[in-house]
Amino acid sequence: MPVAKPVMNPPFNIVRVSHVEFAVTDLEASRAFYVDCLGLHVTAESADRIYLRGIEERNHHSIVLVRAEKPVVRTMGFKVASEEDLDRAAFWFDEQGLRAEFVERPHQGRTLNAVDPLGMPIEFYFEMEQTSSMLQKYTHHRGARIQRIDHVNCFTPDVQVSHDFYTAVGFRVTEYTETEDPDPKLWAIWMHRKGNVHDLAFTNGRGPRLHHIGMWTATPLDILHICDVMATSGYLGNMERGPGRHGISNAFFLYVRDPDGHRVELFTSDYLTADPDMEPIRWTLRDPQRQTLWGHPAPRSWFEEGSFFEGTAVVEPVLEAQPIVAR
Amino acid sequence: MPVAKPVMNPPFNIVRVSHVEFAVTDLEASRAFYVDCLGLHVTAESADRIYLRGIEERNHHSIVLVRAEKPVVRTMGFKVASEEDLDRAAFWFDEQGLRAEFVERPHQGRTLNAVDPLGMPIEFYFEMEQTSSMLQKYTHHRGARIQRIDHVNCFTPDVQVSHDFYTAVGFRVTEYTETEDPDPKLWAIWMHRKGNVHDLAFTNGRGPRLHHIGMWTATPLDILHICDVMATSGYLGNMERGPGRHGISNAFFLYVRDPDGHRVELFTSDYLTADPDMEPIRWTLRDPQRQTLWGHPAPRSWFEEGSFFEGTAVVEPVLEAQPIVAR
Amino acid sequence: MPVAKPVMNPPFNIVRVSHVEFAVTDLEASRAFYVDCLGLHVTAESADRIYLRGIEERNHHSIVLVRAEKPVVRTMGFKVASEEDLDRAAFWFDEQGLRAEFVERPHQGRTLNAVDPLGMPIEFYFEMEQTSSMLQKYTHHRGARIQRIDHVNCFTPDVQVSHDFYTAVGFRVTEYTETEDPDPKLWAIWMHRKGNVHDLAFTNGRGPRLHHIGMWTATPLDILHICDVMATSGYLGNMERGPGRHGISNAFFLYVRDPDGHRVELFTSDYLTADPDMEPIRWTLRDPQRQTLWGHPAPRSWFEEGSFFEGTAVVEPVLEAQPIVAR
Amino acid sequence: MPVAKPVMNPPFNIVRVSHVEFAVTDLEASRAFYVDCLGLHVTAESADRIYLRGIEERNHHSIVLVRAEKPVVRTMGFKVASEEDLDRAAFWFDEQGLRAEFVERPHQGRTLNAVDPLGMPIEFYFEMEQTSSMLQKYTHHRGARIQRIDHVNCFTPDVQVSHDFYTAVGFRVTEYTETEDPDPKLWAIWMHRKGNVHDLAFTNGRGPRLHHIGMWTATPLDILHICDVMATSGYLGNMERGPGRHGISNAFFLYVRDPDGHRVELFTSDYLTADPDMEPIRWTLRDPQRQTLWGHPAPRSWFEEGSFFEGTAVVEPVLEAQPIVAR
Repeated sequence: MPVAKPVMNPPFNIVRVSHVEFAVTDLEASRAFYVDCLGLHVTAESADRIYLRGIEERNHHSIVLVRAEKPVVRTMGFKVASEEDLDRAAFWFDEQGLRAEFVERPHQGRTLNAVDPLGMPIEFYFEMEQTSSMLQKYTHHRGARIQRIDHVNCFTPDVQVSHDFYTAVGFRVTEYTETEDPDPKLWAIWMHRKGNVHDLAFTNGRGPRLHHIGMWTATPLDILHICDVMATSGYLGNMERGPGRHGISNAFFLYVRDPDGHRVELFTSDYLTADPDMEPIRWTLRDPQRQTLWGHPAPRSWFEEGSFFEGTAVVEPVLEAQPIVAR
Repeated sequence: MPVAKPVMNPPFNIVRVSHVEFAVTDLEASRAFYVDCLGLHVTAESADRIYLRGIEERNHHSIVLVRAEKPVVRTMGFKVASEEDLDRAAFWFDEQGLRAEFVERPHQGRTLNAVDPLGMPIEFYFEMEQTSSMLQKYTHHRGARIQRIDHVNCFTPDVQVSHDFYTAVGFRVTEYTETEDPDPKLWAIWMHRKGNVHDLAFTNGRGPRLHHIGMWTATPLDILHICDVMATSGYLGNMERGPGRHGISNAFFLYVRDPDGHRVELFTSDYLTADPDMEPIRWTLRDPQRQTLWGHPAPRSWFEEGSFFEGTAVVEPVLEAQPIVAR
Repeated sequence: MPVAKPVMNPPFNIVRVSHVEFAVTDLEASRAFYVDCLGLHVTAESADRIYLRGIEERNHHSIVLVRAEKPVVRTMGFKVASEEDLDRAAFWFDEQGLRAEFVERPHQGRTLNAVDPLGMPIEFYFEMEQTSSMLQKYTHHRGARIQRIDHVNCFTPDVQVSHDFYTAVGFRVTEYTETEDPDPKLWAIWMHRKGNVHDLAFTNGRGPRLHHIGMWTATPLDILHICDVMATSGYLGNMERGPGRHGISNAFFLYVRDPDGHRVELFTSDYLTADPDMEPIRWTLRDPQRQTLWGHPAPRSWFEEGSFFEGTAVVEPVLEAQPIVAR
Repeated sequence: MPVAKPVMNPPFNIVRVSHVEFAVTDLEASRAFYVDCLGLHVTAESADRIYLRGIEERNHHSIVLVRAEKPVVRTMGFKVASEEDLDRAAFWFDEQGLRAEFVERPHQGRTLNAVDPLGMPIEFYFEMEQTSSMLQKYTHHRGARIQRIDHVNCFTPDVQVSHDFYTAVGFRVTEYTETEDPDPKLWAIWMHRKGNVHDLAFTNGRGPRLHHIGMWTATPLDILHICDVMATSGYLGNMERGPGRHGISNAFFLYVRDPDGHRVELFTSDYLTADPDMEPIRWTLRDPQRQTLWGHPAPRSWFEEGSFFEGTAVVEPVLEAQPIVAR
């Protein structure tokens, strides 16, 4: 079976996905999208940077917007359980022959910047400036009432390689998709650290590229409301897919694109996965309910477009199998 | 039976309850409550008056706030079906020996100001300035996302008299409460013109006084949200009763008090009553699920306090029977 | 303007749309769909007939299923305000030279069976057997928790003719769609009697045929739930369109097809239209948000397929203009 | 400060609270309550035992009902991360001088039965029989659509002792209540392992006794629905408190009592607590919004009544401070 047993004592302890840094070409347009429309909260901002967080997040930021020439993803950040875990991580990357170096990041403690075997930029930290939760400041809930970052989802040219690497550092597979070959190959995986369906997912495709970040909302009605808001405030063209229900993860979802095309999933309704012996759920690639329980195929853009990681070359995927795409 | 058959061809055609004018002692405080907290929309305002409406209302106003020395209710307005209905109404009030005179009201066409047999001030008009619906301007939905005025509920010293009068002008009873006497008396009635449970309700008590106006929201989650908002923005003391479910009308409700004590019900989940042969639902006074399906008794203030109508003397009720009151 | 002023004193008083009779080819399959899946309540049933109603309906039936060779619509029923209105209706149809005759219908009082100028079969009655409301029998709420019939929507070969006829009998236009010609033509209309967006709607197309019946639910979550239920219980192929938000009527909707292809809309979130001077809302045919506020085009089947009325010939529509259709 | 830093490398790895075994005096009545009313799923049952689980649970049981003479709690079960953790746990309890022994439990692997320092019976296991998730079997969702067990909440005679013990085995405090003494004492604590507000909570009171088990639902509307169901199906008297919003944990809640008086909380809307450096939230005992954000005090029964643990003596609490109680 291509899905490995979880590694219960990984070389270092990753708590969860924590933040993403998006380079954007028009910071004002991005601010309007993320703050005025989606309703994220601004923790800090300067002429060139905006730090955003969801309603329940006490961490300083889960999305960082940085003014730049090209719309790329600079990094995906993961929180580890202690300062010692950072040192263990540095040691482990070094052992693997993978680049990893400590860098300075505003509002974060020591931060280890690294690349995975396919060149995807990731960073680890333990400490981040804390700020106040907006959870019980209900007068400030706006837009989709986004509560927190939930996951990142990436195209990888080799799902098996990504699976093997992230399994080794402790991510556990909750659901996966195989090709329908006699000798099935991994086509997509959903992996977690924090105890729900995913912190990190990979899909076969030209990559590495970021497919989307997932932001969690408390109820499906928050997602229906943001559909209404976007459709009537100039953001109709930014609604790419949904609302709908994924078969995988049971998520109720909406996919939207920011002004630079970075994709954000608004997402709710998955389930607890804390049990280490929970058996991963297997889906086959052409099961139409895999993508959308209710049967709507995703548009082509959803399968093909993604954000580049800064400075990271993209290669063709190893698998040619194709999912069901809307005409 | 104390509940009469509906009068299908009344002397003039009332469409629905339309608006209420509240005299308030601190207009800024009232604006903060109705606009900033509850989320009503301002159609127009001056130094001494604010005209408010809900999301779906195209009529210029459903609540008018007027700066005054004393917090009273100036009038309750009903829309009639045509200009001719105003003349018919004037004729009919005259026939009954009840005062009714045409007055000027800003933003309204000809308006007939009248009193009912118990001295309650009411007014009728056909035309009101029209404004744009906010229903599909979703970015402007705030607070409880109140959609429209639904009803007014009054204390009357004699429910039977109120019943007889409003039946004569076409209101139809949907639900009612009787005392548990061998010869039961009407203790409360719910009457409508527009096809849901009520435009107008009466409860036995010192009166006439306004018990509350009911404002309609689309879902119970809008009401839960305003509970959270009020509880965390200095309005905890303004939450008087609920949220809960009435047995009568099946309404999901929350009762709040404005800064002057005028009571507003946020309300949803009743039902269609368009059929003229729909049998009224009978409740007995001490059925605990009449008030609250879930069993919570209402606080004493809810049974005893109400807003005075300007210039209208209040008398003791004819019935002494008492509902169940929370200790 | 092609939309006429409402007729406030029509020749007879129609209260609302009341019921539809569907001929179905496999009564057991239809029962499974309407009762076990959608959750409608059975008031009565025999070997060849099933009478259904929603949670809040006290009328004996709003959908009648009848075993038959061919899946057609037998009649669409409207409740009038009194027995006298039936006689007035009979007189009026006679005056217009339109067929109308009193027929026997089980569980209904005197029933006037008629055809409109385009041959569409309609019937009128005042009295129907009353049964108990399930509204507060919450343990029996199932499926989509459908509360009541809301409207019927038909293809007509000539929207203007349908508009003129139903305006004459008192239906009032709330929203309409025009072609984008220099001399715009009516392409679709939404008309009501009961005080919300519609009891009856017409769209240009081969007809007369029934496009769908609309059944009202209390919240969008009831509609999301029935999507989940249908998608996981063998009814995925019966989900034709949605869930989504119509621009027209603001309805949150799902369109499903019964085992014979009769179309049912699950529907919520429209607005009160009781005011006789409410200005109809105008849409243009190719406004993409007219059909779906969120931008999803409807499938071709939705524009082309409908149920035939028994014994009624269908003709091509007078207008050739086409809406936006999903590829 | 009375709240200790979390122990990041505890002597053994507890994953989460997993199940509770309730001795009940009328198994049929309990089945009606938990299955027919609340909608839990039966995994297995015999003449004397019923094993229940929520919609998303693949573990064989989260509530076990056992026919008995007296309504007590037999045990509270926790899942550990591996078989080795069981041995580590056995060793550690032995070191502490606390009783712990391996016992047989149907449908579970090796199970370590133990008592905590105050005599509270707890058990640990790694393996449980797996069954199918009902999460996407939407036709089988009923009642409150309970998804899973979330937490257990106990009276303890000494919150500080309970805090110290469970901190030592890795539970982390998310929120706590102190008395208003100059030298404040811990009055209540909420502690977790799985990454949300709690797996285990303690309140000062005669104990050890179980205050309640918390069962998680996806949305507040599921909780409003079960209020309607209970209130109209003979369970009105079983509704003890709520629905409402706790200040602590932000939970939207309803407390109900089973036929023997065991208390169950239906619960949703808390937040992610995976970060090990998340600062616990401090509340003071007489802050009225601590218990209920919306201001309703809890009834006296809620503060005084609880379920006894089988064979466990109860002692008076060390603190005399009292919360706000409804008259």
